[in-house]
Amino acid sequence: MEMHMHAQILEWLTTAGERLKAPLRQDLTVAEKTSAKDLVTEMDHQTEEYLLGKIHQYYPDHHTIGEEGSDRSKASHDCGYLWIIDPIDGTMNFVKQKDHFAIVLAIYKDGQPLAGYIYNVMRDHCYYGWVGAGVFLNGEPVVPLEISDIRQGLVSGNMDMYAHEKYPNCRKLLDYSLGGRYNGSGALSILDVLTGRTAVYLSLGLEPWDLGAGHVLAEILGFPMTRPDGSSVDIFHKGPVIFAQPAVHQQVIEILKSGELND
Amino acid sequence: MEMHMHAQILEWLTTAGERLKAPLRQDLTVAEKTSAKDLVTEMDHQTEEYLLGKIHQYYPDHHTIGEEGSDRSKASHDCGYLWIIDPIDGTMNFVKQKDHFAIVLAIYKDGQPLAGYIYNVMRDHCYYGWVGAGVFLNGEPVVPLEISDIRQGLVSGNMDMYAHEKYPNCRKLLDYSLGGRYNGSGALSILDVLTGRTAVYLSLGLEPWDLGAGHVLAEILGFPMTRPDGSSVDIFHKGPVIFAQPAVHQQVIEILKSGELND
Repeated sequence: MEMHMHAQILEWLTTAGERLKAPLRQDLTVAEKTSAKDLVTEMDHQTEEYLLGKIHQYYPDHHTIGEEGSDRSKASHDCGYLWIIDPIDGTMNFVKQKDHFAIVLAIYKDGQPLAGYIYNVMRDHCYYGWVGAGVFLNGEPVVPLEISDIRQGLVSGNMDMYAHEKYPNCRKLLDYSLGGRYNGSGALSILDVLTGRTAVYLSLGLEPWDLGAGHVLAEILGFPMTRPDGSSVDIFHKGPVIFAQPAVHQQVIEILKSGELND
Repeated sequence: MEMHMHAQILEWLTTAGERLKAPLRQDLTVAEKTSAKDLVTEMDHQTEEYLLGKIHQYYPDHHTIGEEGSDRSKASHDCGYLWIIDPIDGTMNFVKQKDHFAIVLAIYKDGQPLAGYIYNVMRDHCYYGWVGAGVFLNGEPVVPLEISDIRQGLVSGNMDMYAHEKYPNCRKLLDYSLGGRYNGSGALSILDVLTGRTAVYLSLGLEPWDLGAGHVLAEILGFPMTRPDGSSVDIFHKGPVIFAQPAVHQQVIEILKSGELND
């Protein structure tokens, strides 16, 4: 773990988080009625500008991808350091709930995962991990709760997906589990799996900036991230993804494939 | 607001919360595999005993109802002070997530709402309200975000209910909204409506201890709590309930009744 870089990132995330909190402290009623969309666009843009500015200032030879104005062609892997930023993961929550959103940052080196940060701003929970060093919550090592069977775990994913069976057999997955949870943020839903608060998170489509940090943290913890059919994921190609507890990953694939779980 | 009683309640809730946190700090892996059910039963029981003990000690002539061993016949309203306790709302979350659960306490006087407390233990958020004094979060007045149209709000409720349309047209409600959220705790889902983080919470059945505090806080804030057909709720009779933002309440009833929203 490059301690100097880590300290910088924590400082940047904290500063960015404070800037996101500022407009939420004001009465948003007017903004909500007239310009909620403008507010989130503006804050998304400002936060990304700020973070990319810092990265370019201190690491001018590093590549970057942000949610806004990203040039994915630059991202083609074997290219030294690549930073991937999501300034606000959970924009709907940001404007509608003033809560349950995250700033997300991932670093790859020569195409390999290096570091991931998911900062739950309103709760002041910063989850981060470096390959070789482990995964931490505000400096304390994360010890995931273990789930050994999908029937003993909770599932997460967009409620609309489960309500309308937008991925084949996803409702069966819900039925086999102890129940469903959804918080509206992809990165926070991935964290729920990695900490064991849910057994699996199924998404119909995640972009690199939604996926990156979760992917790095999953790698460090030895958690699988695959397509729902079990095939591998290139994070630069949007598509359906499952993050799962290691012991239930094959169960999830089996249920999504066949609608059944055979013991 | 009876300040002495309020101070006592805050102290009891804090103490009860600390006692609930203690076993969660330990590695629950063993407990999860062998006796998760025992743990939650034990903690539920201990917490209720503690709270009821305090109430009976300081207010021996007050009536009480708890989730465990409750005698609802005593609850028949016009009987001075009645305390209703839910020691752990969100027991599944308590044991499976170590998060997203609440201690819930309501006080009625001569059948009328008097005070409500919903303590989100892991986040250390105590929402409370007294009739005549308002609703507060950790001492700060709660100013609900306003939602003026169901199409501009989020909905909550059990994911299984939406997935299998367990209440007629509930999936239509989800479709009209900006999306669904579910955190697995009835009391915390009610709070989401009362603060404006969601527009409506629909439940197929809530017991008095799930409902009581939410009902009191809703009354204070002027938020409707009704059956999904708009009829009034006797909290001592379990049945489907909606908590809604005032401006969307009729829209919710209309959608659930007809499957359509006519402007």
